[in-house]
Amino acid sequence: MTELTIGQYQLVSNFFSLTIAAMGAATAFLWINRSQVADQYKTAVTISGLVTFIALYHYWRIFASWEEAYAIVDGTLIATSKEFNPAYRYVDWLLTVPLLLIELILVMKLSAAETASKSLKLGALAAIMIVLGYPGEVSDVSSTRWMWWSLSMIPFLVIVYELFVGLKGAQDQQPEGARSLVGKARFLVVASWAFYPIVFLFPMLGIEGGDAKTFVEVGYSIADIVSKAVFGVLIFMIAVKKTQADKGSIAA
Amino acid sequence: MTELTIGQYQLVSNFFSLTIAAMGAATAFLWINRSQVADQYKTAVTISGLVTFIALYHYWRIFASWEEAYAIVDGTLIATSKEFNPAYRYVDWLLTVPLLLIELILVMKLSAAETASKSLKLGALAAIMIVLGYPGEVSDVSSTRWMWWSLSMIPFLVIVYELFVGLKGAQDQQPEGARSLVGKARFLVVASWAFYPIVFLFPMLGIEGGDAKTFVEVGYSIADIVSKAVFGVLIFMIAVKKTQADKGSIAA
Repeated sequence: MTELTIGQYQLVSNFFSLTIAAMGAATAFLWINRSQVADQYKTAVTISGLVTFIALYHYWRIFASWEEAYAIVDGTLIATSKEFNPAYRYVDWLLTVPLLLIELILVMKLSAAETASKSLKLGALAAIMIVLGYPGEVSDVSSTRWMWWSLSMIPFLVIVYELFVGLKGAQDQQPEGARSLVGKARFLVVASWAFYPIVFLFPMLGIEGGDAKTFVEVGYSIADIVSKAVFGVLIFMIAVKKTQADKGSIAA
Repeated sequence: MTELTIGQYQLVSNFFSLTIAAMGAATAFLWINRSQVADQYKTAVTISGLVTFIALYHYWRIFASWEEAYAIVDGTLIATSKEFNPAYRYVDWLLTVPLLLIELILVMKLSAAETASKSLKLGALAAIMIVLGYPGEVSDVSSTRWMWWSLSMIPFLVIVYELFVGLKGAQDQQPEGARSLVGKARFLVVASWAFYPIVFLFPMLGIEGGDAKTFVEVGYSIADIVSKAVFGVLIFMIAVKKTQADKGSIAA
């Protein structure tokens, strides 16, 4: 017997499979369409596809780990001796979150020095944020979860501040057609990222057992689809708009 | 013992495998031939391949789930403790049906505003249609199936009306060589889509047990091959014709 119901178990399973399909589709879309943007934006689109590709790999492992962690015997869900591995998510984030930030910085086409310094700074902050979150994620003790959550929120808030304030000036320098899309991308990063610390909080807010587990796994899956696949397509659309704007200014 | 005969079980198994082969072949064909169409039609062809790619993934899972759900012991087919997962189909449709509509709209090359508004409207209706179908699909109670089927038919009929009437005007604006193909694509969408609610009805029309299960799985597989792989190739042919027509008008 487990705290999860069979329905909850299957719901999470189906969400993992949906996420695999979404990440695979986004990867193919981005890499195939890469030829449609100008050379200077190709790296941003390549990296967008890299992020969904890395997530595809990890969701494949997450799905397999989830399948192995439970079995249905005589109509009852039981936990097997192979526990579900929550580390896959954190390894995924450790690799993809700095890349996600770099995608956004690259597509803005700042100066080389600014691109390098912002990528390094935000990428390092993102890595620290994820490393600080993990000890809380794997703990069942509410006070321990709160402590690591709070520590992890410090780099998180610095990143959000940098994106919203630090990149605002860069947004205004974008060509007209791309400006509103860049604004949307900035907004989408912040909104989808805000989802993660909220999902993390579920088990600490009176939601318990199977409900908490289901909320957390489904919540992270949705957040990953939005912040990686949907965001990646948005980055591609910005690159297309900027390619068109560059061509227009050459013709004019 | 199950309601399925061994012959029925194997027939369904072979149809799933056929569908995997068809989806894989269509994906490769579309993505490889993408370079043969003009830039403005490339996204439509990419998305056509994306639809068959997503279906390829889901039929892979469907096949595996079907294999695991049954075993042949001493010449008798028995159901294992791992039930066949009908959710893969619905997750597949949730992702692919809006994309299918978008490929048809994209290849018509309407204005940007019309493309966006039609994609959003038809895509959202398609998602609602699928979400409303699922509770009926997993129910064994005839009246429950009828209720969800009827609800799901409302967005279905709106989409069919939009495609047949709303896109008729757009069809007339197509270049001569592509006009009849666009007409065929509109017809193929409606005809292949009509197949789904009919397949859904089988278990409610006096067909029972193993027969109903076999009809439903084989029926959905055929409908998916037609509406995704065959339709995708048709979209590619339209894109080729329109590429030729565009070149002709530049030459003239």
